[in-house]
Amino acid sequence: MMTPEFDFIEKLHVPAETKILLLVLDGLGGLPQKFGGQTELEAADTPNLDALAAEGICGLHEPIGTGITPGSGPAHLALFGYDPRRFQVGRGVLSALGIGFDLHDGDVAARGNFCTVDDAGRVTDRRAGRIETGKSRELCARLRKIKIPGVELFIEPVKEHRFVLVLRGLELSPRLGDTDPQQTGTEPHQPEVRALEAEHTAQLVRQFVNQARQKLAQLHPANMVLLRGFSSRPAWPDFRKVFGLRAAALAGYPMYRGVARLLGMNVLDCEEPLESKIAALKAHWEEFDFFYVHFKATDSAGEDGDAQKKQRLLTEVDRHLPSLRDLDPEVLIVTGDHSTPAVMKSHSWHPVPAILWAKTCRPDGVKAFGEEACLAGGLGPRFPAIDLIPLALAHAGRLRKFGA
Amino acid sequence: MMTPEFDFIEKLHVPAETKILLLVLDGLGGLPQKFGGQTELEAADTPNLDALAAEGICGLHEPIGTGITPGSGPAHLALFGYDPRRFQVGRGVLSALGIGFDLHDGDVAARGNFCTVDDAGRVTDRRAGRIETGKSRELCARLRKIKIPGVELFIEPVKEHRFVLVLRGLELSPRLGDTDPQQTGTEPHQPEVRALEAEHTAQLVRQFVNQARQKLAQLHPANMVLLRGFSSRPAWPDFRKVFGLRAAALAGYPMYRGVARLLGMNVLDCEEPLESKIAALKAHWEEFDFFYVHFKATDSAGEDGDAQKKQRLLTEVDRHLPSLRDLDPEVLIVTGDHSTPAVMKSHSWHPVPAILWAKTCRPDGVKAFGEEACLAGGLGPRFPAIDLIPLALAHAGRLRKFGA
Repeated sequence: MMTPEFDFIEKLHVPAETKILLLVLDGLGGLPQKFGGQTELEAADTPNLDALAAEGICGLHEPIGTGITPGSGPAHLALFGYDPRRFQVGRGVLSALGIGFDLHDGDVAARGNFCTVDDAGRVTDRRAGRIETGKSRELCARLRKIKIPGVELFIEPVKEHRFVLVLRGLELSPRLGDTDPQQTGTEPHQPEVRALEAEHTAQLVRQFVNQARQKLAQLHPANMVLLRGFSSRPAWPDFRKVFGLRAAALAGYPMYRGVARLLGMNVLDCEEPLESKIAALKAHWEEFDFFYVHFKATDSAGEDGDAQKKQRLLTEVDRHLPSLRDLDPEVLIVTGDHSTPAVMKSHSWHPVPAILWAKTCRPDGVKAFGEEACLAGGLGPRFPAIDLIPLALAHAGRLRKFGA
Repeated sequence: MMTPEFDFIEKLHVPAETKILLLVLDGLGGLPQKFGGQTELEAADTPNLDALAAEGICGLHEPIGTGITPGSGPAHLALFGYDPRRFQVGRGVLSALGIGFDLHDGDVAARGNFCTVDDAGRVTDRRAGRIETGKSRELCARLRKIKIPGVELFIEPVKEHRFVLVLRGLELSPRLGDTDPQQTGTEPHQPEVRALEAEHTAQLVRQFVNQARQKLAQLHPANMVLLRGFSSRPAWPDFRKVFGLRAAALAGYPMYRGVARLLGMNVLDCEEPLESKIAALKAHWEEFDFFYVHFKATDSAGEDGDAQKKQRLLTEVDRHLPSLRDLDPEVLIVTGDHSTPAVMKSHSWHPVPAILWAKTCRPDGVKAFGEEACLAGGLGPRFPAIDLIPLALAHAGRLRKFGA
């Protein structure tokens, strides 16, 4: 309940030969389809996960805080032991990570929207009628022709009207206000300079925006750009140093690979299917102490409102559990980054079921892996997700005693 | 879950005639000997503790934080309501407390090792081959002949190669670095001066180390000393003032007596057996509001890996419970300072079972005192140990309402 600060835990970890495996089933937590029914996880056929729950310690975690619906980025930070309220990353960096852009230290990234402005330059639609992704890709190609001396520009399409702008060069600063006015009827803002050292970057951004306006002028509805969330890759404590773990990430989607890379994890090559990740795990088992394995499809099924599919996917995941146990990790954690109940078709704030398995677990009477069953578990019904890594370290024999 | 700060609680406590009794069974928490089995406490025959659990409120506490294995000193601070991450005491002071040395304000204490150095003065063994305690005692007697003008020196043997050095005099400061290089192959460090006012103390320490080197020169393998953890008795808030309790400690071992004395408790004379402590309790019952009773043997049995003995000791403790209840305290807490599972033969991070009994307890359905049973208790499965004292004050009618 009281997770120690990094400097505290950094003094306590000791070298060991033990392995920790964290399997994240994205959007794992669910809700019954109707009152009295079962959640997707409860309805799934999961004999292997149930056995793991019976041998291990269970509970439900809150990734960010009570009542807070997590985005995938912050939720993963929490699972990795980083308090997501303290470690916040700008929108620009998050967007860049989401498309797998290789952000360098010192780069300044911004989230961009194509938008519509009228003849007087006032914004009339902040999303340019949600143009299609293909259209956005064309427009980005056009913007790439913009050249500004002394800075390298990257313009990458995201989904629909969204894109990412990255500035790379000397002495850039992200301390700039948004150009997005967040409302229609007014002109885009000039980027507000929030620190003296950002003046140069502001000038570059103004030049980019002016040239973008010219290049897009005839392309109504996408005849202008809005930028927000100027940010740089944060200088956060390195996961390997804080927890004393050589860490590897096995994730197919760019966003998850990006977050892992941000913390200093080694992102291994693998495809999205779990088989590919298990093969990569086996191939690299001796090289690392900590393995993060991500499984995306459960979240997508939840977002689609397809409870049957989410249930079926969880049944499939269960079939792979023996392969993971065969690797013989000292600690095996199975949980989600957040809940995505199919009935809600979205992420939610509901606590997320978790199993921590190790030989040193004290049994807690939980015999099945499901939301209601986990309530009675030893980890508690609403524990902070950031507790998981310190606990894994303890069970892996990687923390020495505090005080005499 | 959020224990108020001292200045908050200090404003709320009110005088009362009520008594709080805290029984600490050292190393209480355990693990099953094998999967599906019972812990030491669960296997013990404890009808009186079970009845107390049924009448009171139960749970399991984490002394320091999730996954953190507590030393006895910090674990006791937590039970007394002092967050052990905030109230940290130096190694020297802890060692002095551990042997029952009567540290005065302004004394500077250091933990010492007898070590081996080669002809060039380089450390070859930081522990002098772990010489026997008897030998260490002889060497300490020899070091006591060292006289340095302006300071009184105390040199006390601990176990094996360990000793405690205490300097007593005017204007001493503990702001010194270790002389222990923490590795072999290098000479001992000169004590680094970390604050201007520590220069004088550094000179005294240098003189002591030089004279010690001369006195030990012919006594290979113990031919030199290493010092670390220079520290002084901390000026912490007084338990009596913070919580408004006249506090008495009944503990046989020096370490526990020392910690209690550090907080301003009155340490009463008693022997280690529980009978002796109960007799002392009766004799002093009217003089105090808060009684801390320590029982060491359960931890020792756990450290020895003797689950049977730990179980037997808990059965014995149970037989004494009626004598404690006969004293008619308004609040009776039975818990441990940390877990010492016999299968691990060491302290561990596992949460510690706890009962808080008072007439104002709201029943929580727990009918037996054991690790699994306590999970369902009203205190929660992983509550911070520092919550216990505020809760005891409340049940003892010693806290007024906050706000109107």
